[in-house]
Amino acid sequence: MTLWDKQTGSLDFSTLRTGYATGLTPTEVVLAIFARIDARGEDPAWILPFPRESVLARAVELERDGQRDLPLWGLPLSVKDNFDIAGYPTAEACRAYSRMATKTDPVVQRLLDAGAIIIGKTNMDQFGVGINGTRTDYGIPRNTFNPAFISGGSTSGGGVTLAAGLVSMALGGDAAGSGRVPAALNNTVGIKPTPGLIALGGGSRAGMSASHNVMTLTVADGVIATRVMIGYDLDDPLSRAEADTFHLKLTALPDVFRFGVPSKATRIFAGDAEAERLFDEAIARLERLGGQPVELDFAPFYAAAKMLYEDAFIARRYANLQSFFDAHEDQIYPATRDIIGWGRGYSGADVFVAQQTLARHARTIRQMTADLDILVTPTTPTTFTIEQMLADNIRNNAMLGTYTNFVNLLDMCAVTVPMGFRGDGQPLGISFVGQALQDSAAASFAQAFHTALGGKLGATQTPLPTPLEGAFA
Amino acid sequence: MTLWDKQTGSLDFSTLRTGYATGLTPTEVVLAIFARIDARGEDPAWILPFPRESVLARAVELERDGQRDLPLWGLPLSVKDNFDIAGYPTAEACRAYSRMATKTDPVVQRLLDAGAIIIGKTNMDQFGVGINGTRTDYGIPRNTFNPAFISGGSTSGGGVTLAAGLVSMALGGDAAGSGRVPAALNNTVGIKPTPGLIALGGGSRAGMSASHNVMTLTVADGVIATRVMIGYDLDDPLSRAEADTFHLKLTALPDVFRFGVPSKATRIFAGDAEAERLFDEAIARLERLGGQPVELDFAPFYAAAKMLYEDAFIARRYANLQSFFDAHEDQIYPATRDIIGWGRGYSGADVFVAQQTLARHARTIRQMTADLDILVTPTTPTTFTIEQMLADNIRNNAMLGTYTNFVNLLDMCAVTVPMGFRGDGQPLGISFVGQALQDSAAASFAQAFHTALGGKLGATQTPLPTPLEGAFA
Repeated sequence: MTLWDKQTGSLDFSTLRTGYATGLTPTEVVLAIFARIDARGEDPAWILPFPRESVLARAVELERDGQRDLPLWGLPLSVKDNFDIAGYPTAEACRAYSRMATKTDPVVQRLLDAGAIIIGKTNMDQFGVGINGTRTDYGIPRNTFNPAFISGGSTSGGGVTLAAGLVSMALGGDAAGSGRVPAALNNTVGIKPTPGLIALGGGSRAGMSASHNVMTLTVADGVIATRVMIGYDLDDPLSRAEADTFHLKLTALPDVFRFGVPSKATRIFAGDAEAERLFDEAIARLERLGGQPVELDFAPFYAAAKMLYEDAFIARRYANLQSFFDAHEDQIYPATRDIIGWGRGYSGADVFVAQQTLARHARTIRQMTADLDILVTPTTPTTFTIEQMLADNIRNNAMLGTYTNFVNLLDMCAVTVPMGFRGDGQPLGISFVGQALQDSAAASFAQAFHTALGGKLGATQTPLPTPLEGAFA
Repeated sequence: MTLWDKQTGSLDFSTLRTGYATGLTPTEVVLAIFARIDARGEDPAWILPFPRESVLARAVELERDGQRDLPLWGLPLSVKDNFDIAGYPTAEACRAYSRMATKTDPVVQRLLDAGAIIIGKTNMDQFGVGINGTRTDYGIPRNTFNPAFISGGSTSGGGVTLAAGLVSMALGGDAAGSGRVPAALNNTVGIKPTPGLIALGGGSRAGMSASHNVMTLTVADGVIATRVMIGYDLDDPLSRAEADTFHLKLTALPDVFRFGVPSKATRIFAGDAEAERLFDEAIARLERLGGQPVELDFAPFYAAAKMLYEDAFIARRYANLQSFFDAHEDQIYPATRDIIGWGRGYSGADVFVAQQTLARHARTIRQMTADLDILVTPTTPTTFTIEQMLADNIRNNAMLGTYTNFVNLLDMCAVTVPMGFRGDGQPLGISFVGQALQDSAAASFAQAFHTALGGKLGATQTPLPTPLEGAFA
């Protein structure tokens, strides 16, 4: 017997674990999830919900094997459509690109081996290019707080399925903000690890320098899931040697700490006074936690961020997709086609010059942040309605990436957690950003902030639970 | 009173230090050097020997200041023509490029601050592109053992001035082998440090990923000089954080060690049976020192090496020189123009693909070498006459770089020392190659081998001296 309610029972890790420890079964949870999916009706968050018989079979398999000590035993998962799962198509939100996968990406396999249950494959900005959620052949996922607003992307369906209470975690990727923006715009948590901690495997087309990531309802959940994903991979040349010994964990905050923030003069909110108010309140909250804000001229961060799409680094996107792009240009989503097409125009020399310029920005930023415990930024300057986004897709997307685009380029890590709600009910996020391998610090500050803020999980009515103790060990 | 002979006195560090401790003066050494230069007559090794009055003034200045404990006090130095020295032109061996320098490159300043005396600026393969020594507007430097043979390059004049007994050390650079090949072909020593230990400063056009380096007559001398050059530089984005704490030093070899060599089946000697014999003898010599050879399939090393000139990395050379190249293409040495021109043809996407491919080779090679103490290769497969080189400059240059091109690309370090002489009297070199920051191991193995081989310094009659104790501390 369990008190877990089929309609409103939370899927956060600690609620489900408690449930599973007191009689709830994965089969019951899967059935409840499919009932919720049915209740939502046609939902572009999914490109491919898995056949419910096969998901139920997976639940039964877990119950039969009984390995309940697996870190993700019985926890439902959605998978962004750029990962390969053997026997299912991978389309990356482009119908012309869709092809049947014959292998399962290693990171997906890790999650499965840890006991997760895949509910389905989720919508995304095509080929992972974009962080707004509108660039897809499979319908536009809707923000979980107001369907007129964007979901954020590129892991758009992941953010929606998580916040809507359909999964415990959403697997995605994050180079420009793809795992942080949809988390922020749906009141959830996104951990973007240091590049190279999670091996990219073969399937990530936007990859080569991205990080796979999960969105979860709490930071502690994200820590548990991310640990499963971290590991060295001989087949991935960008995999970090440190990965096999790296232990992500939450720690208590120091009594006093220094956190960098964009200076008042260099903060960007695109005219969103509500976002500005929320960030001011967040700084005050961090001060109450013992933090001392240090204002930084954010120009070098913005200059680095701009390089991701407005300099030769965009040639990487073209490089990843070259043969398909050249053959099927007219079947690619227009904004995506334009952006990847820019990449075709850069020369090899441009790339070397850009890499040199980026290295200079990185150097400057390392100096600026050397004596700080953590960096704190809004996750996005603001948000947009779908109508606004479609009216100026490239420019508004660039605005969304103001605070996220620089992180991966600069070999940094970040964790986004809820920052509160605007007057119109739209949630925004706050990011805790660290240098390479400061993932535990970023997660710990993010967790402390989220706990201090309180509130509910995603778009559900469940209050933030006590974090899993395991995430601190 | 000193026994140092003006005509034959060696310029190796320990001989000069002993001389200076017993009455010899820098002024006497400078006068002797200029007498030797005069005796050689017109010598394309120099692009610009410094005015002797100014060199003598520098010697007098050192004598007057009396800071004899400076690590390079009174030691004569030649400087490759791609370094800036305020008040002198920098041409990089291209007449059309020649321009007056207004600043002195930081690494040159470090050597001066340590007490070195610059004798002049030396010839080079134009813009540092090439490792054979023929690609220059300033006449072709001649091998110090036989003027019909190449000097090696790109630090061609450096190798010649050192081996000919005109300087104690030759400052150059080394991305493809520019500091190792002329050292090898003139029976001297070249240390190519891990990239980023020596800051590049602003002046190195072939830079962006090269390493500055010195050639010396002994490994111990090279260790002393390289220490002076190593240091972190905030202005160089590729400078390594480890540089400020890195201490290069010689150590005794372990009693037993494992050294990787190209397998018999994958050794390349371009038909040079004498080179093959010398390398076989070298392996036997290392076995007598306690070494156990481990044969490696060298295909991944060759594949990486080929990428330097035959893949998108060549776009870096074009990137460094773009505006001058586009405006003065017809004034560039033909082979150099062809090669840099290839760089113009690569796209940004090509660079990202090439970087990914290179990362895979690097990964493979790290696995292959993980349980080895050091790698040992010939420094070049063979050598060429100037006539042979001019007949097929690009192809023969590529052959020369077989064992050197991969080192810098793969973030490795290497030290070349003499391997002995072919029957026709041409010296060849042997390289000790380590992973990043294994510079002390590479130098220690190289020093032990050189000591075991014995012989004379460069093209002089001076026998290999007892190494400076300071290099072991």
